[in-house]
Amino acid sequence: MKTIIRPEKIVWQELCRRPVIGTANLDVQVKEIINQTRLRGDTALIEFSEKFDGCALTELQVSDDEIDEAAKTVPDKLKSAINSARRNIEFFHSLPVKGSKVAEITKGVTCWSREIAIEKVGLYVPGGSAPLFSTVLMLALPARIAGCHEIIVCTPPDSNGAVNPLILYAASVSGVTGIYRIGGAQAIAAMAYGTRTVPRVHKIFGPGNQFVTKAKELVQADGIAIDMPAGPSEVLIIADGFANPEFVAADLLAQAEHGPDSQVIMLTDNSMMIDSVTAELNLQLSRLKRKEIAERALDNSCLILMNSLDDCMEFSNHYAPEHLIIATSDPSTLAAGVINAGSVFLGEFSCESIGDYASGPNHTLPTNGYAKSYSGLSNESFMKKVFFQEVTKDGMISLGPVVEAMAGAEMLDAHQNAVTVRLKAINNE
Amino acid sequence: MKTIIRPEKIVWQELCRRPVIGTANLDVQVKEIINQTRLRGDTALIEFSEKFDGCALTELQVSDDEIDEAAKTVPDKLKSAINSARRNIEFFHSLPVKGSKVAEITKGVTCWSREIAIEKVGLYVPGGSAPLFSTVLMLALPARIAGCHEIIVCTPPDSNGAVNPLILYAASVSGVTGIYRIGGAQAIAAMAYGTRTVPRVHKIFGPGNQFVTKAKELVQADGIAIDMPAGPSEVLIIADGFANPEFVAADLLAQAEHGPDSQVIMLTDNSMMIDSVTAELNLQLSRLKRKEIAERALDNSCLILMNSLDDCMEFSNHYAPEHLIIATSDPSTLAAGVINAGSVFLGEFSCESIGDYASGPNHTLPTNGYAKSYSGLSNESFMKKVFFQEVTKDGMISLGPVVEAMAGAEMLDAHQNAVTVRLKAINNE
Repeated sequence: MKTIIRPEKIVWQELCRRPVIGTANLDVQVKEIINQTRLRGDTALIEFSEKFDGCALTELQVSDDEIDEAAKTVPDKLKSAINSARRNIEFFHSLPVKGSKVAEITKGVTCWSREIAIEKVGLYVPGGSAPLFSTVLMLALPARIAGCHEIIVCTPPDSNGAVNPLILYAASVSGVTGIYRIGGAQAIAAMAYGTRTVPRVHKIFGPGNQFVTKAKELVQADGIAIDMPAGPSEVLIIADGFANPEFVAADLLAQAEHGPDSQVIMLTDNSMMIDSVTAELNLQLSRLKRKEIAERALDNSCLILMNSLDDCMEFSNHYAPEHLIIATSDPSTLAAGVINAGSVFLGEFSCESIGDYASGPNHTLPTNGYAKSYSGLSNESFMKKVFFQEVTKDGMISLGPVVEAMAGAEMLDAHQNAVTVRLKAINNE
Repeated sequence: MKTIIRPEKIVWQELCRRPVIGTANLDVQVKEIINQTRLRGDTALIEFSEKFDGCALTELQVSDDEIDEAAKTVPDKLKSAINSARRNIEFFHSLPVKGSKVAEITKGVTCWSREIAIEKVGLYVPGGSAPLFSTVLMLALPARIAGCHEIIVCTPPDSNGAVNPLILYAASVSGVTGIYRIGGAQAIAAMAYGTRTVPRVHKIFGPGNQFVTKAKELVQADGIAIDMPAGPSEVLIIADGFANPEFVAADLLAQAEHGPDSQVIMLTDNSMMIDSVTAELNLQLSRLKRKEIAERALDNSCLILMNSLDDCMEFSNHYAPEHLIIATSDPSTLAAGVINAGSVFLGEFSCESIGDYASGPNHTLPTNGYAKSYSGLSNESFMKKVFFQEVTKDGMISLGPVVEAMAGAEMLDAHQNAVTVRLKAINNE
């Protein structure tokens, strides 16, 4: 963990740089996986499962029985925690989507828009050592609330071909319509192009390793919508002299344990905080199960003493953090200045873990500075807006000449003519 | 123009296929242009202008004087048409963005979201034979209404290095903050990465040729947001026996004149309409300035007799047209069934040209079936949503254990610990 004292603005750009993980040759490998999946469908998927997941599959889709059995293995206490989180996520994601108000733009011209659910969506849920069932809730609940008809999940099987029961349970309480034991780039290809077993979807969501990320990038270039570009997870904490160093350190470590490429930053206007947070970090780090991972993430990270809290916010907007924790005595005032961030946590009890699981807003958020242009997931991410317009005879009379003049100037005379034939017909009545 | 009678559902997929234009070697060429622009900035831009636009530039940015002079050359009638269109576009794009309502999710946990303008956006406006100044209005007005601070336009110069005065005039009345005489892939690269003269932006919008489209796709893969994937323009018209064949033919041709890769489709439940529209098409086509282009587009196109209007709508949702014109006696009933479309025009006076220029909704719409997952542009396309959450001590007491249980089950003990240290502190008070 580096400590940086009052950096000049000229070096901010450099300080905002994210850790980069090499991806040599990834492009070629992932293209080949996608091509094989497109060409040979289920057969290719079964071969890839053997190769990458080390399991011999016969059924790609998870059966209802398997899902029911999984639910029985989930302890009641955890079920109840999952359902509390589910209620909160549902609440926040059900806040009303902008109404499709009908507006009379000018006499005889009414326009409106309607938000309509994307019919088929695909959710990728990573496997690996920890079963990320919270990802299932965060992806499937907004899809269900938006009204998507088909909500499928792909997730890698273990070496016995089984899917983690917590993932199955979370899917079964979130409105998922089909679960497939497929991981990696081939899962993205299967959802993008469809196979005999896996339905083709219109938009793909969810985190994943670099193969998954590259596959999402490649299918996006082919016109399949994806949630957002991926990058390593990160937190930026603004702490003043009143912040609790124990809490700040715990929040930095919660982010750092995600992966060696995670980045955590603390900005403060109080030089004492640097020392006390450093001490707490050392104390808490030694107790963590994922100590090695967190340590490597801390190597990418820094504690920065700034001139003022306003400078902290300005730096934060420049960095555009995925998670921004404002641990100051008056967080609301500072929060009013937020321009670029994914999700913001105000005050000492609003830790990022609460947002990761259960406060309500989505935990799928723009990383890597993408918060400058991307939003976190919401039910709107699972919908698209369709415009409607209705022009009456009066509307044509008043607006037709405007269109004739503009289309004429753009030298598009068939555009002009579509209005002219109508104006003539009105005149000849 | 092909005529197809009552196609079986099995062939719908085939009928929904869009014309494809070959792009061999495009990838390599565009990557090189992007790399050169990133490496050598303005110098590369000036070389590319000489190579591709045939003009020797000294100033990349258009001066205020040049913009003022341009306004003087625009006829008053056209100025007034542009300003009528501007008023309507402003009206529609100013309809309220969803409020950032503060919701108490559970006791002590309040969450809300705020829509915040993207600070810097770049708009690409194609050059070529016709000056597409309507594109300037459709891109810049929602950006200004959203509240973007920096709204720059890149557009190719003519061989004298000049930019079309109509484009300059439209930019000057739409809140554009800087205009650069740069076209092609290099313009996209300049806006994505910045040069000495051209500011780097966070999101790039606008149509263009295949070089521009490929460049947008490549910078998107590098994390720069773009408006949506591009494809040839298209219209689908649903006409019943009451539709006016002259109007239908005029609307088909208005779309067909866009380019040889445009596609136009008419669906009807009335076989007489096929004959009468065909006759009108032949009549009107012969009079068009862009007859050759429209003819080639009609080669990709078809008139289809369906079994019923419901089947027409089902086919249309399958096709997901950029523009959908419902030319039937009761368009509202049919419009209720729209799932996939960019912009919908109801009734005989709602021709697509009106929407292209002046009814209010944006004309930047998803083509190529992308309406299944993408929306047309709106002021929200120029904003992103930031989540906020505030958890009090009570909120931590009630929700903390949920997070502890879930984080524990995901084996993320630093996440768990961030809650545990707070619960302990509360208990020790």
